Amino acid sequence: MAAPSLAESIDGDRLWSRIMELARIGACEDGGVDRPALSAAEIEARALLVDWGRELGLSPSTDAVANLFLRYEGRDPALAPVMTGSHIDSQPTGGKFDGVFGVLAALEAVEALHGRGERPLRSIEIVAWTNEEGSRFSPGMSGSSLFTGAASLEAVMAIQDAEGIKLGDAAAEVLRQDHNIQQVPFGRKIAAFLEAHIEQGPLLEKAGMPVGIVTGIQGTRRYRVRVKGEAAHAGTAERRDRRDALMAAIRMISAIDKSASYPEDVKLTVGMLNVIPNAPSVVPSEVSFSIDLRHPDNSVVDRIDAEIRQAVESHKGPCESELRQIQHAPSLDFPESMRRVIAEAADRCSVPAMNVYSVAGHDARQLHYVCPTGMIFVPCRAGISHNPEEWVQPGDLLAGTRVLASALWHLANQG
Amino acid sequence: MAAPSLAESIDGDRLWSRIMELARIGACEDGGVDRPALSAAEIEARALLVDWGRELGLSPSTDAVANLFLRYEGRDPALAPVMTGSHIDSQPTGGKFDGVFGVLAALEAVEALHGRGERPLRSIEIVAWTNEEGSRFSPGMSGSSLFTGAASLEAVMAIQDAEGIKLGDAAAEVLRQDHNIQQVPFGRKIAAFLEAHIEQGPLLEKAGMPVGIVTGIQGTRRYRVRVKGEAAHAGTAERRDRRDALMAAIRMISAIDKSASYPEDVKLTVGMLNVIPNAPSVVPSEVSFSIDLRHPDNSVVDRIDAEIRQAVESHKGPCESELRQIQHAPSLDFPESMRRVIAEAADRCSVPAMNVYSVAGHDARQLHYVCPTGMIFVPCRAGISHNPEEWVQPGDLLAGTRVLASALWHLANQG
Repeated sequence: MAAPSLAESIDGDRLWSRIMELARIGACEDGGVDRPALSAAEIEARALLVDWGRELGLSPSTDAVANLFLRYEGRDPALAPVMTGSHIDSQPTGGKFDGVFGVLAALEAVEALHGRGERPLRSIEIVAWTNEEGSRFSPGMSGSSLFTGAASLEAVMAIQDAEGIKLGDAAAEVLRQDHNIQQVPFGRKIAAFLEAHIEQGPLLEKAGMPVGIVTGIQGTRRYRVRVKGEAAHAGTAERRDRRDALMAAIRMISAIDKSASYPEDVKLTVGMLNVIPNAPSVVPSEVSFSIDLRHPDNSVVDRIDAEIRQAVESHKGPCESELRQIQHAPSLDFPESMRRVIAEAADRCSVPAMNVYSVAGHDARQLHYVCPTGMIFVPCRAGISHNPEEWVQPGDLLAGTRVLASALWHLANQG
Repeated sequence: MAAPSLAESIDGDRLWSRIMELARIGACEDGGVDRPALSAAEIEARALLVDWGRELGLSPSTDAVANLFLRYEGRDPALAPVMTGSHIDSQPTGGKFDGVFGVLAALEAVEALHGRGERPLRSIEIVAWTNEEGSRFSPGMSGSSLFTGAASLEAVMAIQDAEGIKLGDAAAEVLRQDHNIQQVPFGRKIAAFLEAHIEQGPLLEKAGMPVGIVTGIQGTRRYRVRVKGEAAHAGTAERRDRRDALMAAIRMISAIDKSASYPEDVKLTVGMLNVIPNAPSVVPSEVSFSIDLRHPDNSVVDRIDAEIRQAVESHKGPCESELRQIQHAPSLDFPESMRRVIAEAADRCSVPAMNVYSVAGHDARQLHYVCPTGMIFVPCRAGISHNPEEWVQPGDLLAGTRVLASALWHLANQG
């Protein structure tokens, strides 16, 4: 009997049980997960990751924004490492796999190598990026965009959550609770970055494919709109005298929704809307809301961008309005070389794979600006994510992790 | 020189300085007041009231919902007392006068009597009703509707605030912090109820009148609408597959707003709207919002009520919806006898007064079901209330308090 291959050394049960163990931290009664960035729950999950890494002899390190790295030392520690991972924060109504799969697949790949006694030329660093989701602190991808220099430390640290807590203070608290984890600067040289993730779309499942080779990421524009009116008594203020911030916001959103109704694959979402003072018998004095706009065709995004700006201006009525674009990430393609590395790894593992486009954003977007970057998708049931119903077949997790391990081994042995 | 009359014994400066002292409890930087029902701020304001009352020898008492009574004993303590007062809770963006004026005008009236050494036949009880505003715990008028038996103790005690705190628990905490205040049952017999309040409308100011004799109170219907959709990823879920609770709610509110656009004096307000999970990149899974509908003509209210129900049903799209009417208070008239008592008191004090209709709700609504009830209004600047800009001229506060004192004296001496 031949010795098992690297792919055969991947332990799907161990991976599955770790995913389930991590899902208990921040678990909700509905089966979902609520593990905000830099929260107590994330601190607990982070400590668990560090423990798992230390059991394999991996060296943990972190940085000012609490990105977590677990390093599997290569034969030449002076060479730039290959990096792989994703994030462990979740949406408030998140699931068990989004982000976590990419981190634990990386850990499983390294554990398989470790178990085989194999060390690649380059070190492999597993990473859990801080605040990918952007729901507690918005915008997201804080850790990866600071690492690559796309964002400024001052701006990211000043982002506040709904309770006014600054990201910088929350990160400092995470670092305070770390035990013997050294802090390293941002911006080390990375040889390549590979991120495994659930698809968050229905294409792989429909095609019956266990693995997707991600060709690119859909562009996103994100906005915040603030409408200022005037508080007034619900029973006495005449409609003609009111400066009702909510009714103005509703007229704006109705118009924006209409703009985004064509073409039919435009994704426009108002996910957050806050009313002040939010009392049943007070005319709202202030409303703020988010807009998230995505489409693969940048010209469609540009057209709707112009219509959003016009809708906010033309429906403000007697209120004041302010629109800020807080993110503009054009659609991008991953390099052909990295897609080939993944395709060849899938071949070696005898795992069927197809090209697929990412309509969701990922930390890999940030990394692709500074090093060869690729992504591996696994199908998720009905394409559902950011939802307690999020689900992935164990066999697909195994297949994706095999391809990841094989691709990492290849990348980390390139001189 | 003749001895001063009761009206002349009213000390406008003392009244003003007490209003300003109370306004410091829960004061906001913008000059407004945020003193939620049964909050730490209200506990502090309540203790101050009790202290002021005790200095005059008034006996404090309370009940299960923390209504506060300060009793000025009459010559025949066995007779049903005349009650007067209002509330000291505020809207989140409230002003200094709404509610507080009625309580402190009552205290000033009693202090003037006390200073003159005059005791009426019946006792006079000053009252601060719990949770009139209904913004922390909705619906409001909790204290007065429990006192009169219009509401059930179980239902009121179970109302929760936005943080899930039950009104019953908050009231118990207030009672726990009381010092030597006896608790009395609900539903004592009351000879008459008089409430002084700011107008919260522009009519008195426009007419240059310092006092309004309130003829009645506009009806109110209050609703809660809950829209249930499904959380989904903002970047991946196709619009045709979404069950976006916020977009459904916005279609409903747009239609409801249109229904209320005729006649032009309909007051329709969506003051509260909460989004779950309220994250920028998650399609909202649930939205709840309030509707507050008021008009003097009950048939207009009924017509819009039907249209609200239809709008919620016909715009829910792929979501589920639930509409609950949580309050239905028809328009009411105060008895002619009480309006005459107030008019004669104004005559005695040489204070010009005119009839005025209340478009806002008041605790007097609840009392009018169980005893002869009347209200005295003073003008507020530009009719503005529930707003930091709320303002009343000191001279108008003095005039209103003189009329209140004179009317109370008359009522409390009737056998």
